Amino acid sequence: MSFATPPAPPYLAVIFASQRTPGDDGYGATADRMVELAREQPGFLGVESARGPDGFGITVSYWESEAAVGAWKAVAEHRMAQHAGKDRWYQRYELKVATVVRGYGFERPAATTR
Amino acid sequence: MSFATPPAPPYLAVIFASQRTPGDDGYGATADRMVELAREQPGFLGVESARGPDGFGITVSYWESEAAVGAWKAVAEHRMAQHAGKDRWYQRYELKVATVVRGYGFERPAATTR
Repeated sequence: MSFATPPAPPYLAVIFASQRTPGDDGYGATADRMVELAREQPGFLGVESARGPDGFGITVSYWESEAAVGAWKAVAEHRMAQHAGKDRWYQRYELKVATVVRGYGFERPAATTR
Repeated sequence: MSFATPPAPPYLAVIFASQRTPGDDGYGATADRMVELAREQPGFLGVESARGPDGFGITVSYWESEAAVGAWKAVAEHRMAQHAGKDRWYQRYELKVATVVRGYGFERPAATTR
């Protein structure tokens, strides 16, 4: 998983910052499954995620609407994962919902050969 | 660096996703300096960052206003770092500016002893 490719703004971003508890304890498999499940949801526009060796991570998912964000939060399998997150996987998390208003990017040109 | 602690919404989030080129090449020192410099800027509300072993990272900085975001982008020392980023440090990046509208968090209660 790397860059998300949402369409032109506006759309919503859910910024999820988290500190993992030590050990995997089923986290990795569930995290992978949640990405797979999110991709199937109506209004899903992409997700990108990074976690450092200290266990602090940021996942940003992109959605068409507040309705799509709310529906994803309520998906039963996702709700089970949320409960396990509070019970076992996260020391702390902070979630923010934001409206993306603009953006731009850069990509390094491919090296030329001669 | 871990969780940012911005005040109650609304405020702005700058979501910066990036893929590093291989090697440090001065990146780490400049990244640390940019965090230090950002903290001195008017309207700065916090920053959080994570990068995985694959070199894909997400940094989210929080700001009071579009004016604060624009002023930070234009700070001379930051502009030099932006140029070096395109020249050397980033294979690709995507930057998004968003308005945070709501948020919530969770923190694990301290373990009790008996």
